[in-house]
Amino acid sequence: MSFDKVAIIGLGLLGGSIGLAVAEHLPGTATTGYDSDERVRRRAEERGLVGTVCATAVEAVEGADLVILCVPVGAMGEVGRAIAGTLKPGALVSDVGSSKKTIVEALAEAIPANPVIPAHPVAGTEHSGPDAGFAALFHQRWCIVTPPEDADPALLAELVQFWEALGAMVDTMTPEHHDRVLAVTSHIPHLIAYTIVGTASDLEEVTRSEVIKYSAGGFRDFTRIAASDPTMWRDVFLNNREAVLEMLQRFASDLAAMRRAIIEEDGETLFEAFTRTRAIRRSIVALGQDDARPDFGRKDHLG
Amino acid sequence: MSFDKVAIIGLGLLGGSIGLAVAEHLPGTATTGYDSDERVRRRAEERGLVGTVCATAVEAVEGADLVILCVPVGAMGEVGRAIAGTLKPGALVSDVGSSKKTIVEALAEAIPANPVIPAHPVAGTEHSGPDAGFAALFHQRWCIVTPPEDADPALLAELVQFWEALGAMVDTMTPEHHDRVLAVTSHIPHLIAYTIVGTASDLEEVTRSEVIKYSAGGFRDFTRIAASDPTMWRDVFLNNREAVLEMLQRFASDLAAMRRAIIEEDGETLFEAFTRTRAIRRSIVALGQDDARPDFGRKDHLG
Repeated sequence: MSFDKVAIIGLGLLGGSIGLAVAEHLPGTATTGYDSDERVRRRAEERGLVGTVCATAVEAVEGADLVILCVPVGAMGEVGRAIAGTLKPGALVSDVGSSKKTIVEALAEAIPANPVIPAHPVAGTEHSGPDAGFAALFHQRWCIVTPPEDADPALLAELVQFWEALGAMVDTMTPEHHDRVLAVTSHIPHLIAYTIVGTASDLEEVTRSEVIKYSAGGFRDFTRIAASDPTMWRDVFLNNREAVLEMLQRFASDLAAMRRAIIEEDGETLFEAFTRTRAIRRSIVALGQDDARPDFGRKDHLG
Repeated sequence: MSFDKVAIIGLGLLGGSIGLAVAEHLPGTATTGYDSDERVRRRAEERGLVGTVCATAVEAVEGADLVILCVPVGAMGEVGRAIAGTLKPGALVSDVGSSKKTIVEALAEAIPANPVIPAHPVAGTEHSGPDAGFAALFHQRWCIVTPPEDADPALLAELVQFWEALGAMVDTMTPEHHDRVLAVTSHIPHLIAYTIVGTASDLEEVTRSEVIKYSAGGFRDFTRIAASDPTMWRDVFLNNREAVLEMLQRFASDLAAMRRAIIEEDGETLFEAFTRTRAIRRSIVALGQDDARPDFGRKDHLG
């Protein structure tokens, strides 16, 4: 590894997991970290998320070879500006943001003198904060890297190697393509989940207690995603508007077709639609991207 | 238990699980079973889902004190007509269908001479068929019973006792209310999941391989539900049209509001919507209706 010192800005689920994964897989690499929330810094210290928890972002990035910004997408530019003057010449700046096009632009502007190669590890849980991270979070997950056209190939290779050392598989693509792919595999699913959980909470003819009691019929799955970090997700939707709105339009149109089939009692259309969706599930499980056990291996049936 | 012999018609996930649960919790109760698919009957025999696998439904219900129909909602009436003439006088007929209003009507018409008390155990996995059932499926799950107004209280009490013996908690309500509650906690979630998985499959600018690889961003959760039995779900939507269309209307309207907030870059509305949904998740976990571990306790991170 050519990164001797890695600085992590933002010590929530992603930042904390990177710190723990570096300690496990790259024991020779020093880590520093910073979070704008003092309580988070304290917990990070207690859990040992990074080698040194610093009092400022500037202090954390001093002398670092790789700086990873693990803050909400909307805060990237500000953090970039705060550290730009302190970065070691040639130090690589990367991130873990869930949208990429606006981040590429914000970081290029904020950090004109250092190389920036954005990345997005497609991994997470519904939990957030300094207690949520764990070293195995990236294991067998894909990390998408979106290098600018003029990125130094050697530096790119080192970033890829870094993520692979943490257990991830790496793909590269343009920020624009990333944003469309993630709109459908992550952003729209979250928007839908947040929406239906909200809809269920607002009903007058069905009580909240009933919604909770009978949630095992399917609803509870959506509540997990809808428990994700609100700040992070607000920023995702504000920063990937175009692709999200495009995919949302398609979903709404497909949902309208389902509605028509129900109104017209068109069982054949429904049956066909419900049959072809099984293949994708099988592929996801076959490629190690989900648990093969029924019900994700939930253990609630075991009492 | 006053049911000495229980007949189970339909030996898929639900029917098979009932058979196994009776064997475990009510060892003194004899079970017979039938399925219209010969291969299912053979697997049921091999797995010992019921004490005796019969060659016809008529044979299975002979002498039974309780008959439970575990067939798709659309097949209830036909099965009811087939067995009506053979039922022992006073034998109770029940079911496990996911919608109730049309079943109540269909069974009352098909089985005029025997008491009918419909039920719906709100439990299941994405798997179906004779290999999917397991004895603990109903443990700590709610079973909703929808007795007709003139139901015999003693018989109703026995049915409640039966489900409680299998590990379930029992609620009673009207078929109409059941159908509205389940529309929001189960039917709409399934419709949405089937739809978004279909939308993702049809995209041209994002490949199916990309959808699968990056599904850990949220999408994969939806594919589990969308892998459920197509026949069962077709029948649910054809039989609970009114409540499903009503709830779908509300969801679509809430989704349109989210879309407006994204278009107008209204971060405050998004943040507020994403914050209040967390409370329902906490309640579901607190009431034992979901696994408290992050990511449902999926073990894919463990490699």
